[in-house]
Amino acid sequence: MLLFDGGRAPNARRVRIFLAEKGISVPMQPIDIGKMEQRTESFLAINPLGCVPALKLDDGTVITESVAICRYFEELQPDPPLFGVGALGKALVEMWNRRAELELYLSVQHAFRHTHPGMADYEVPQVAAWGEANRPRAIAAMQLIDAQLAKHRYVAGERYSIADITTLVAVEFIKPAKIAIPDDLVHLKRWHAECAARPSASA
Amino acid sequence: MLLFDGGRAPNARRVRIFLAEKGISVPMQPIDIGKMEQRTESFLAINPLGCVPALKLDDGTVITESVAICRYFEELQPDPPLFGVGALGKALVEMWNRRAELELYLSVQHAFRHTHPGMADYEVPQVAAWGEANRPRAIAAMQLIDAQLAKHRYVAGERYSIADITTLVAVEFIKPAKIAIPDDLVHLKRWHAECAARPSASA
Repeated sequence: MLLFDGGRAPNARRVRIFLAEKGISVPMQPIDIGKMEQRTESFLAINPLGCVPALKLDDGTVITESVAICRYFEELQPDPPLFGVGALGKALVEMWNRRAELELYLSVQHAFRHTHPGMADYEVPQVAAWGEANRPRAIAAMQLIDAQLAKHRYVAGERYSIADITTLVAVEFIKPAKIAIPDDLVHLKRWHAECAARPSASA
Repeated sequence: MLLFDGGRAPNARRVRIFLAEKGISVPMQPIDIGKMEQRTESFLAINPLGCVPALKLDDGTVITESVAICRYFEELQPDPPLFGVGALGKALVEMWNRRAELELYLSVQHAFRHTHPGMADYEVPQVAAWGEANRPRAIAAMQLIDAQLAKHRYVAGERYSIADITTLVAVEFIKPAKIAIPDDLVHLKRWHAECAARPSASA
C-alpha cells in the first residue's frame, strides 16, 4: 500500500500521528499542497477528489478521509485501541472525536480559509463574515473540551484516543487562523503540553 | 435508557432510521425543537450542549452526536451490520458516511440555516453569502454520490449502511434549503426511491 501524504496539512498530520501511536510504518509519497500537487492530472488519476491524505491499497482501492484511513488501520491492528474499547467506550470516542472535529477543527478551518489572504485561490468564494463568525465557535469548543479535561486525563476519558489526535491537530492549527487558547483554559493547556510531548506528535 | 428525540430534525431521524433497520426499540421522549425545548433549563440539565438527539443510559451517562448513538447500538447489536464488514468494508462505510455528512449534509444545513428567515434566531450570525455558497457544494456532493451509485447499489457498496441513512436524510432536507436533485442524476434518484420505500424511512 501507499499513503499519499499532505505534509503540514492537519488531516495529513492526523493520519501520521495515528500510525505513529500504532507503531505502523507505511510507505509514503509526499504531495505538496503548497504547490497544489493534489490537483495535478497525475494525482487526480489516483484520487479524483483531489485531496490528501489518500491511501492506495494493493488492489487499487483508494481510501480517502483521514478518519476512514485511521479506522482501516484500527481494524487491521487493534492494539493499542484508538477508537475506544467496549460499546460505551467506542461511542464516547466517536462522540468526542466528532465534537473535536465538527465544533473545533471545522471552526478553525473555516476561520483560516475564509479570512487568510493566502487561501483566496483555495476557498472560493471566501466569505470573511463567515470566517469571523467561526472564531468564537472555536473558542466555545475549546471551553467545552477544557471542561471535559478538568475531569479526565484525555479528551474521551482516561485513555488516549483519536479524539486527542483530532483535538491536537486542531489546537495546533489555531495560530494561522488568528485564534489563541484563552489563558484560563488551564486543563486544555495541561493536556496540550502532555500530548505534544508524545513521540507521535512529531510524526 | 431513554432517547431524547428531535422529531423532524434530520439528525434525530438518522437515529430513528438506524434503530428501525436494527429492529431495536428504545423508549423515547420527544423534544420539540420548533419550541426550542432543547434549550430549556430542564433539558440543559440532561444535556448541557442543548442539542438532540441525546441518549441517556441507566447509569446517567449521556451520549450525544447521532453517529455516536448509532455506533453504541451497532456495538450492542452487530446485526445487521450498518457500519460495514471487515477492515476495508468498515473503512469504506466511514469514508462514504463522512462524504455524505461533510460534503452533502453540512452543505445543505449551511444553505438552509444561513438563508432561511425562520432560522435567524437559531443561526447567529446568519451569513447569507455563505448559505448561497453551499448550494453548489451540495449539488457537487450529489453528483459525487450519483457517480458512486452508477456503479453500486448503495452509497458505500453493495450493502445498505449508515452512509445510506445519512444520504437519505440529507437528500430529504434539500427542499427547505431550496435545492433540488438535478434531473440528470438518475442513479441518485433510483437509489432514493429504493431507500425511501424501506419501512425504516418512515421511522
